[in-house]
Amino acid sequence: MQAVTQRKITVVGAGFVGMSCAHRAAQLELASEVVLIDVNGSRARGIALDLSQAAAIEGWGTRVSGTDDPQATADSDLVIVTAGKPRQPGMSRSDLLEVNGRVMIAVAEYVRRLSPAAHVIVVTNPLDTMVHLCRHALGFPARQVTGMAGVLDSARLRYFIAEATGTGVVDVDAMVMGAHGDSMVPLPKRCSVSGVPALDLISPAELDELSDRTRHGGAEIVKLLGTGSAFFAPAAAAVAMAASILNDERRLLPCACLLNGEYGLEGIYMGVPAILGARGVERIVELPLDTEARIAMQKTAGTIEDDLDALRGLGLL
Amino acid sequence: MQAVTQRKITVVGAGFVGMSCAHRAAQLELASEVVLIDVNGSRARGIALDLSQAAAIEGWGTRVSGTDDPQATADSDLVIVTAGKPRQPGMSRSDLLEVNGRVMIAVAEYVRRLSPAAHVIVVTNPLDTMVHLCRHALGFPARQVTGMAGVLDSARLRYFIAEATGTGVVDVDAMVMGAHGDSMVPLPKRCSVSGVPALDLISPAELDELSDRTRHGGAEIVKLLGTGSAFFAPAAAAVAMAASILNDERRLLPCACLLNGEYGLEGIYMGVPAILGARGVERIVELPLDTEARIAMQKTAGTIEDDLDALRGLGLL
Amino acid sequence: MQAVTQRKITVVGAGFVGMSCAHRAAQLELASEVVLIDVNGSRARGIALDLSQAAAIEGWGTRVSGTDDPQATADSDLVIVTAGKPRQPGMSRSDLLEVNGRVMIAVAEYVRRLSPAAHVIVVTNPLDTMVHLCRHALGFPARQVTGMAGVLDSARLRYFIAEATGTGVVDVDAMVMGAHGDSMVPLPKRCSVSGVPALDLISPAELDELSDRTRHGGAEIVKLLGTGSAFFAPAAAAVAMAASILNDERRLLPCACLLNGEYGLEGIYMGVPAILGARGVERIVELPLDTEARIAMQKTAGTIEDDLDALRGLGLL
Amino acid sequence: MQAVTQRKITVVGAGFVGMSCAHRAAQLELASEVVLIDVNGSRARGIALDLSQAAAIEGWGTRVSGTDDPQATADSDLVIVTAGKPRQPGMSRSDLLEVNGRVMIAVAEYVRRLSPAAHVIVVTNPLDTMVHLCRHALGFPARQVTGMAGVLDSARLRYFIAEATGTGVVDVDAMVMGAHGDSMVPLPKRCSVSGVPALDLISPAELDELSDRTRHGGAEIVKLLGTGSAFFAPAAAAVAMAASILNDERRLLPCACLLNGEYGLEGIYMGVPAILGARGVERIVELPLDTEARIAMQKTAGTIEDDLDALRGLGLL
Repeated sequence: MQAVTQRKITVVGAGFVGMSCAHRAAQLELASEVVLIDVNGSRARGIALDLSQAAAIEGWGTRVSGTDDPQATADSDLVIVTAGKPRQPGMSRSDLLEVNGRVMIAVAEYVRRLSPAAHVIVVTNPLDTMVHLCRHALGFPARQVTGMAGVLDSARLRYFIAEATGTGVVDVDAMVMGAHGDSMVPLPKRCSVSGVPALDLISPAELDELSDRTRHGGAEIVKLLGTGSAFFAPAAAAVAMAASILNDERRLLPCACLLNGEYGLEGIYMGVPAILGARGVERIVELPLDTEARIAMQKTAGTIEDDLDALRGLGLL
Repeated sequence: MQAVTQRKITVVGAGFVGMSCAHRAAQLELASEVVLIDVNGSRARGIALDLSQAAAIEGWGTRVSGTDDPQATADSDLVIVTAGKPRQPGMSRSDLLEVNGRVMIAVAEYVRRLSPAAHVIVVTNPLDTMVHLCRHALGFPARQVTGMAGVLDSARLRYFIAEATGTGVVDVDAMVMGAHGDSMVPLPKRCSVSGVPALDLISPAELDELSDRTRHGGAEIVKLLGTGSAFFAPAAAAVAMAASILNDERRLLPCACLLNGEYGLEGIYMGVPAILGARGVERIVELPLDTEARIAMQKTAGTIEDDLDALRGLGLL
Repeated sequence: MQAVTQRKITVVGAGFVGMSCAHRAAQLELASEVVLIDVNGSRARGIALDLSQAAAIEGWGTRVSGTDDPQATADSDLVIVTAGKPRQPGMSRSDLLEVNGRVMIAVAEYVRRLSPAAHVIVVTNPLDTMVHLCRHALGFPARQVTGMAGVLDSARLRYFIAEATGTGVVDVDAMVMGAHGDSMVPLPKRCSVSGVPALDLISPAELDELSDRTRHGGAEIVKLLGTGSAFFAPAAAAVAMAASILNDERRLLPCACLLNGEYGLEGIYMGVPAILGARGVERIVELPLDTEARIAMQKTAGTIEDDLDALRGLGLL
Repeated sequence: MQAVTQRKITVVGAGFVGMSCAHRAAQLELASEVVLIDVNGSRARGIALDLSQAAAIEGWGTRVSGTDDPQATADSDLVIVTAGKPRQPGMSRSDLLEVNGRVMIAVAEYVRRLSPAAHVIVVTNPLDTMVHLCRHALGFPARQVTGMAGVLDSARLRYFIAEATGTGVVDVDAMVMGAHGDSMVPLPKRCSVSGVPALDLISPAELDELSDRTRHGGAEIVKLLGTGSAFFAPAAAAVAMAASILNDERRLLPCACLLNGEYGLEGIYMGVPAILGARGVERIVELPLDTEARIAMQKTAGTIEDDLDALRGLGLL
């Protein structure tokens, strides 16, 4: 008998977000092995080779490999799903749901079969719907499957608050709930700098403006980049969630969880504060909300339900 | 002409806190050179040698040296003062003020002469009085001289809140103001977890209890250890302040600053939230306080004034 | 008078290598400020915004900004130049020299004017020629201007040796000299694992094969990726050099230096082992070479001279 | 079914080496839980509390606890044994063997019973004998039990070579085999700087002197400190070995392994280069030795055999 100490992470999708997830997870040595899988196996192998050579310089010991063969992902402890298409010009929301929905189902098929004990973090958009579908296809307990959106949205708001208050971003905290997208629900009273409420430092109107900018934070970067979308922060966010689970850090992070009565909602995935630990979602934290936030949460739930209905209409759910 | 990129940190005192400061500053590569100075130069050299050999394994590139010769500290960019005696059984508060006061004056003499541009962070107790005396003896602008207490006191409260809420400590923030000691002023409404007010998660009574435990946090560790006092967290705290200054991180940290009207006080050093950056204390942040906190701040100021009077009585100030 | 502790790094070029340099430099907090400049200022701003939001999650305090305005780079302590085109199908070597040569001259113009004390690390290909031209245009002392190639080439060889010996890559060292490209000169007797000569662990024939693979290590990744070339390892390599300079780490790294008689060569930039510290190239280390290696060094020098002649023919040098 | 991702490390002994091991392991987040056990449980709890408060500042998520109850160490994945007495003035070598031998047996009893799958790293001196005895008492497979000495001895030699060559210590590698103590066997031909043999950079006579200094490296620090012995580097060394095992890094490190014919020796623990991975000692690497080194290895083995005989005489083995 001997302690089994190796850990394995699979990152699905070798695009910008996926490759950045592999890099960050390896830097943190969250696992002894990171497998990057992509339908374009050659690209995945190229990225893995480049990362393996960077390891020699950056000084981390994780082995990174690239593949297009699901078998190589077997027995993963944690899977981050970044695969999927971005919304292209001329593509309807329904088209996007269908394209990425089929990706989720394909990925879930081999994760369920080959890594039945894995924790799964979904990053693919539209986030709340995709994590719902992925979990449905996996058939895993809800605590084992979460979606990354709130950590990213909060990071954006945190950065904007840091800029506005002239303080370093590491001391700024912010809580953003609800769906990933225009209907997200930033909670101004739950933004702070080293524990000091942000509203002690800037006016409610200013903070509202920053919340608005956060709502369109993804689009702002898309526009600046000209081609492509944000990936450094999204990848950092997904890996922070992975670290909290793999190291049992029990961090309180906003993430998409399957609600079971919390916040008056049931049976849908949506962004809420949750404690992530060794068992996945250890606990969903219910915050006392004011009327405005409660209404916003209902509204955001509505937008998710619409997408879920569309998925059902497509026969995917 | 060429960029001058080397940086030099001096740590005064090679006791537990000092050696831990040298270790942490080197690990973070805050400077290319760390000089550890102690009246026991041999001990300082021994610690420096051990640290230099640890560098080979931990993988940092900072050079650490030990000495008892002030000349070796010349041109430091930042000085952390940990020298001084702990309070021994049978030693009066006045005895302690005198013993450590003379240490401050001796240290200030060579820092002023050899490193006139240095930022100075004082850790020696009784903190608020010692930083006051040190700055007086240095004759430096107030922004260049600060004292470490609030970061440590907050860290203790953060840990207690983390335990009570079952969350990871990295997401917990807390703000503790006032003097370092029994009269410190924790601000319960400025404690949060990932931005969520701690009072959303635990009761006011529970948080009050944790604040009380924080007030006696140093004594708790002294008692457990049997001999000696805390050093890992105090050193980490001092170096976090150093990092914010040297890297111009502009973190909002509670530290002992010379007040100039803020919080209705003038001419004394006391723990307040401040932004630390390349110019030292970039800004003291004035928080709106409720009556209870305002009274506590006045009371804590009184205890500091008493010690300053004692120093004056001893002819040190 | 007060210590000036802020440091500023400029990264020229917001392509894959440039953006990865900015990320890595910020993660290591090598400077309080990283400026990413690109002719496409909007892209540079987008990358900088994404990185700034990642900072909130990864926990570093460096400020990152994007621009197309050289003025924003003023007073940099260190500049990493990644700008330039990759060689396109149908593009002759001479075309490449001309295109990237003009980029070097344009960059050198504003670096010389705005950051006359800066250390400069060139990453643009063809490396040895571009660093030569850049330094010529800068008019800086030779020790202030180096090129990144050997750290990358060695990292590739290190990884291949790690794979072949079944050991972790962090313990593997390798020395690769000469020009960046087919004529590079790996030194098999200077490859080791935790100090143990690699030739104690694998056969000379095996090591030769790995050296060959290293020679074509860039092309291998280009082929795998399908589009684009390696960037994680090249960026890590450039930033490792920057760290050695900014932190005065005095690492012994293979880098492109202006030779002044060393290895029997004069007046050309070529990959040699050098100690990088606060003054830039602190010392070029002359290793005793066997006949084979000496011949290879002469040959590699010849290929660089050809390119320099071509630059002269184009009127750029 | 769900991935079990928590990991647990126990550090036995809350002295300087033990507390530094706990700190370093927690900083690297090698486990979600570090248990520090000491016969003085109060001290262990005090250190753990100080470390837990430092976590809030240094930003790591590992939970550290202190205890004197072996039950709290149950199901550890890895155990570092630092308990034992240093050699006191007037204490014979035989006295030391007896005192620390009894500690090994007591520790082994509960580790075998409560953590039967654990990897065990012994740091207690006299090292080679103590790890032998510990493994005997544990009854574990040899690959699961190693001793820390070579990583520390090499680190010392690495630092001395760095000083002598004027290079940063992170690039220096050195291999030191044999017993921990005066009879250790440094291998001058296996010392290198970035792969470059140290003998390319300094003379054999100089390197011999550094080897000699390494042999007395522990005593040098004891003498400088006045009271106590080295702990920063020993702890860093033990935790580097732990990291290689827990993260399956497969590093090639000199450590005390049970020899089974390698180097012509059988049935004794002695310092040899070994690859440490998830299964513990993955492979002992046999280097081709010259006559001098072979003789030195025989001699060092003799000193270990003497101690083992003494243990047998005491009825402990």
